[in-house]
Amino acid sequence: MAEILDVTGADDPRLSDYTRLRDVELRKSLEAERGLFLAEGEKVIRRAIAAGYPVRSVLTTPRRLAGLADVLDPLEAPVYVVSDEIVEGIAGFPVHRGALASLARVALPTPLDLLARPGVRRVLVLEDLVDHGNVGSIFRCAAALGVDAVILSPRCADPLYRRAVKVSMGAVFAIPYARMTEWYNGLAELRSAGFQTLALTPDQSAAPIGKLDLGPRAALLLGSEGDGLSSRWLHEADQNVCIPMSATAMDLGVDSLNVVAAAAIACHALMRP
Amino acid sequence: MAEILDVTGADDPRLSDYTRLRDVELRKSLEAERGLFLAEGEKVIRRAIAAGYPVRSVLTTPRRLAGLADVLDPLEAPVYVVSDEIVEGIAGFPVHRGALASLARVALPTPLDLLARPGVRRVLVLEDLVDHGNVGSIFRCAAALGVDAVILSPRCADPLYRRAVKVSMGAVFAIPYARMTEWYNGLAELRSAGFQTLALTPDQSAAPIGKLDLGPRAALLLGSEGDGLSSRWLHEADQNVCIPMSATAMDLGVDSLNVVAAAAIACHALMRP
Repeated sequence: MAEILDVTGADDPRLSDYTRLRDVELRKSLEAERGLFLAEGEKVIRRAIAAGYPVRSVLTTPRRLAGLADVLDPLEAPVYVVSDEIVEGIAGFPVHRGALASLARVALPTPLDLLARPGVRRVLVLEDLVDHGNVGSIFRCAAALGVDAVILSPRCADPLYRRAVKVSMGAVFAIPYARMTEWYNGLAELRSAGFQTLALTPDQSAAPIGKLDLGPRAALLLGSEGDGLSSRWLHEADQNVCIPMSATAMDLGVDSLNVVAAAAIACHALMRP
Repeated sequence: MAEILDVTGADDPRLSDYTRLRDVELRKSLEAERGLFLAEGEKVIRRAIAAGYPVRSVLTTPRRLAGLADVLDPLEAPVYVVSDEIVEGIAGFPVHRGALASLARVALPTPLDLLARPGVRRVLVLEDLVDHGNVGSIFRCAAALGVDAVILSPRCADPLYRRAVKVSMGAVFAIPYARMTEWYNGLAELRSAGFQTLALTPDQSAAPIGKLDLGPRAALLLGSEGDGLSSRWLHEADQNVCIPMSATAMDLGVDSLNVVAAAAIACHALMRP
């Protein structure tokens, strides 16, 4: 059973996992160094624990303790209980529903290992997305619509970054993912695993995504927020596909969707029976 | 031709349209009182002017003036040119691409007038969305995918609020919209205009949205971020429709999409040939 510890000072060294969350750069190095990430709010904490991530500690307030009892009881990790004022002082932002957990990362599978798992047939590949909120939203779409796995390019934003975890509502724990070690030949691994590669582009001369004849294994490639997919991946993919835009929209210059909207439509099209 | 005026002080009273943008409450009353709204960045300003909104004034920096020359030349309104430092000091935030325009709102059509326009066959109806970013993103989806018009519930967030305009990339100018005066009987107007009303719900017993038999005129109803559609509208609609979630997702508790992802899929399904 978890040890419940009352903490009265925001500068208590046992809370160092949770401090200075506002300092993005420091945070990045801290997370990489310690191999930790944070889950925020009861629902997301439950999903992280259910997915098997080891808990380092939990930080919560007296009000929230009872609601978490069933989750905390089996834990070995310490549970720090602090006042509402102190929890915000520590984290440097209003903590969603008064509960934060610090969890340890686990080793990711390689893309090839993940792609070889039984049942992995529909995959999303994210190339160099920079916005953590977008990555979280796309994981939420992928999980809700039944995509089997996500592959990240080497430089794609981290799905376990706090904002990505939060926006995904914990979907980053629900869907397995892997990170490529190399970008230039990244698609070769997908092909060697028997996946048809489909590059999503705004180019309206590409095949409409709603009318594809999909093979047993298909991977949809999504590009970064500003520039879309690299020309390397567009060129290397088996097929370029597009979401058809209306003629009026093209006239008006509203000729693209944001990456989350495009991902949602693409996942829906990819998963249709 | 627009008058170009150098302004050297952030407290110049001629700049009052642009000051204190950070104060949300003040801003709201100011915009309602003066009937103005702001467009940010060259592309969005161009779209607002092209859509016929009267320009009150433009605020820009010396660097950006040349790029806007063709837009500013035909204007009657004053163009205030200030240094980069002053423009941020006035607005209270980093101004996207160094250009802001203050424009006058125009009278909206009534929902009935809008629904009676020739060519209006596919409509989105937004009930009480609170997040301006979501409203902007949904307008962008609707415009890109060819939805003909948007109807807002009385309490739905304002599409001309600064963040909505920005996130929409100007799509709020490209797609006509109207606001209901009454919520409770709002759907009666849609029906009287001959529109089939489809209520989007996460309830998986509703009809899958990809397989609908749509009539000549169809309106898709989207609910607010947290709670979805009101029970009143769900009950009043001709049909409830859902985006099918994967069985795995339901088991894992990732059982819904955010409203922008849902809107994107719904618009795509609504507009398919």
